[in-house]
Amino acid sequence: MTIELINTGSELMLGRVLNTHQQWLCARLADLGYMVNRQVAVPDTAIDIEQAVREGLSRADLVITTGGLGPTCDDITRERIAGLLGLSLHRNASVEAQIHAYFISRGRPIPLRTHVEAMIPEGAVVLPNRHGTAPGIAIQVSPNPFRHDGRPSWLVMLPGPPRELRPLFDTEVAPLIQRLFPAVDGFACRTLKTTGLGESAMEELIAGPLKHLTDQGMDLGFCARVGEVDVRFVARGLQADALVAEAEFITQRWVGPHIFGAQDDILESVVVNALAARGQTLALAESCTGGHIANRITNIPGASAVLTAGFVTYANAAKITALGVPESTLRDHGAVSEQTARAMADGARKAGSADWAISVTGIAGPSGATLGKPVGTVFIGIASDHGTEVFHQINAFDRETFKYLTAQQALSRLLRRIQAGGTA
Amino acid sequence: MTIELINTGSELMLGRVLNTHQQWLCARLADLGYMVNRQVAVPDTAIDIEQAVREGLSRADLVITTGGLGPTCDDITRERIAGLLGLSLHRNASVEAQIHAYFISRGRPIPLRTHVEAMIPEGAVVLPNRHGTAPGIAIQVSPNPFRHDGRPSWLVMLPGPPRELRPLFDTEVAPLIQRLFPAVDGFACRTLKTTGLGESAMEELIAGPLKHLTDQGMDLGFCARVGEVDVRFVARGLQADALVAEAEFITQRWVGPHIFGAQDDILESVVVNALAARGQTLALAESCTGGHIANRITNIPGASAVLTAGFVTYANAAKITALGVPESTLRDHGAVSEQTARAMADGARKAGSADWAISVTGIAGPSGATLGKPVGTVFIGIASDHGTEVFHQINAFDRETFKYLTAQQALSRLLRRIQAGGTA
Repeated sequence: MTIELINTGSELMLGRVLNTHQQWLCARLADLGYMVNRQVAVPDTAIDIEQAVREGLSRADLVITTGGLGPTCDDITRERIAGLLGLSLHRNASVEAQIHAYFISRGRPIPLRTHVEAMIPEGAVVLPNRHGTAPGIAIQVSPNPFRHDGRPSWLVMLPGPPRELRPLFDTEVAPLIQRLFPAVDGFACRTLKTTGLGESAMEELIAGPLKHLTDQGMDLGFCARVGEVDVRFVARGLQADALVAEAEFITQRWVGPHIFGAQDDILESVVVNALAARGQTLALAESCTGGHIANRITNIPGASAVLTAGFVTYANAAKITALGVPESTLRDHGAVSEQTARAMADGARKAGSADWAISVTGIAGPSGATLGKPVGTVFIGIASDHGTEVFHQINAFDRETFKYLTAQQALSRLLRRIQAGGTA
Repeated sequence: MTIELINTGSELMLGRVLNTHQQWLCARLADLGYMVNRQVAVPDTAIDIEQAVREGLSRADLVITTGGLGPTCDDITRERIAGLLGLSLHRNASVEAQIHAYFISRGRPIPLRTHVEAMIPEGAVVLPNRHGTAPGIAIQVSPNPFRHDGRPSWLVMLPGPPRELRPLFDTEVAPLIQRLFPAVDGFACRTLKTTGLGESAMEELIAGPLKHLTDQGMDLGFCARVGEVDVRFVARGLQADALVAEAEFITQRWVGPHIFGAQDDILESVVVNALAARGQTLALAESCTGGHIANRITNIPGASAVLTAGFVTYANAAKITALGVPESTLRDHGAVSEQTARAMADGARKAGSADWAISVTGIAGPSGATLGKPVGTVFIGIASDHGTEVFHQINAFDRETFKYLTAQQALSRLLRRIQAGGTA
């Protein structure tokens, strides 16, 4: 089975927008056992879109397009593809009703041109968009005039905004593809999420114990992210599930404490769920991470039962008034110190009436370094009724990476302490 | 002049790596007045690379490839392209000396296979790589057997690592392209960043006033982001600069209050800079946005001079103790109310000793809706010494989009108030 991906958008060709669709869709399809053979990006001009689609349909069993389904004058994908395939467009009453409901529920007027988003090519499958107005569209091109042997292909059009495309792919497109193109052989893909070890160190620890499985054809892959390493097992054939299950078992035995989840788990979600399961609460005192940890925690549904309060205490005055850090601690040891981190964690736990508290104080850069405290210096405190521990890191990276990595370290340390002790 | 970009790499097709070359090269070329007509990504297999290059040369005056020039077994671009063009490869003594010098200066042994990086197709131009070992290669394909009229094309191969590719492009490739393809006509591209209007509403307002410019060939494009719409003008020819300048002038007149910046500006950076320029400070009281605004503000270097304190007051107790919201306000009107938003903004401004404060209280969902307050309900307060205004929105989206969009609304409203009054 061959797949081609066509990303439309003049903003892509002008370099105004980063094409994240390619990576996201390719990764999603790979997880399902499919590989994209070619990806093409073209501007929003009729001739380019038509040529790319024609070439895709001449080669691939499945062509996926992104973008150009919206209501503005440069959204021409739907019309051009219908024209290319000789299909007429018809107003779909159910899509139109959904579009109207979308605007009405948000108390906004319905713009004149949005009705074009309800125009669907004859015979096409509508893929409902629950996060926007333009639905996805799937068309079976049969017979396929662009393929030398006339074999049918499927063509799927997806809207451009990632927050619409992604759930639409997961809920509508992935099941459709799996139904249309069932994997004939077995296929298994499993990703373990880890923190606290780099990818070389991880490979050194597990490549040997997994060798009998990789010798049998299982792929072992690593993907280094900020403060995380994904370990990925991919196997095909009738033994695929067994190989991957054994790989996970062995990896758990060798690097278990570093594994915080699997597949799409994210650290903040694992932390929120661990606290919620124990009926425990968390408070945050962030200086250099500036609300980054609070933001990630509150992205998780159910965070309100866990997070009592967060304090972004950039200024020393805020550390004193909001958290009760003694002025003498700040004067004698400085705002970036083990002592201040400890006082911030204790103060946040008290002010937030929480079981646990995290504090962070450091130098995100690019300026702010002092003698003995280079940019990237950070102190992280974890407070509970068993006491407060502070650890020290040097995360010398750009500002956003610094914040992300520091949060990873704080959350993974907190998670291990939550899991170690039954109570705070 | 037509340009095609070919990115090679199986890791791209598996979605394990984000293709940043496309945006970077397209943006660089657009800045020089060239537009990439098509971008293609293919895996590291001979047939796919050859087919993509053949197709590129059949259409484009310039084909740029990335990746596959290194020393490992999956680096086959150089050999395959030489084979396709019928060119023999010769060891280049000067490149070989550079590669040796690269390893010697770093005190590393010279790996056996690196000598393949010194193999250069006959007649090719070597583009020295000062940040790695594999040089870039430029070949004039003349006559061009893949083009129906035999017109010559240029083919440029670049190494894959971004930290090698980028300086190599700037110092070697850009001057070469400008010499080979001097811009005969003018070219202008300008993006205005806007908030507060959807793309349909934006188009309804400006398409008419800009019609005489689009009739003259200027492209008008829109790109919808969360809580933002990019408006883009692209023009070619001797009048390009004048057309784009007039388009910006007209757009400013019609939707000026919605324009917060241009090109790569981001809203939080514009807000931080506007406050810093006035020597003013900001405090934040976030309930449902949970630190999202603080996180974005503190991503901006220089935020520490502007943000005094942020309070993530999820629990009612935190609203009372940290912000001084009266218990009676919470009891009588609820935590999600105009009155609570007002008290939170006033409390944060006072507790943070700041010129300005933003408060946010609402229902991010998926649960938490009450009678008359659906998921997505949010009250946003803006406080200054001129008083406190509260506005009400319904942002019925998934949790992260809700937070992002609410932050956009709060920051753009704050920005307009900062710009309107000389002082807080």
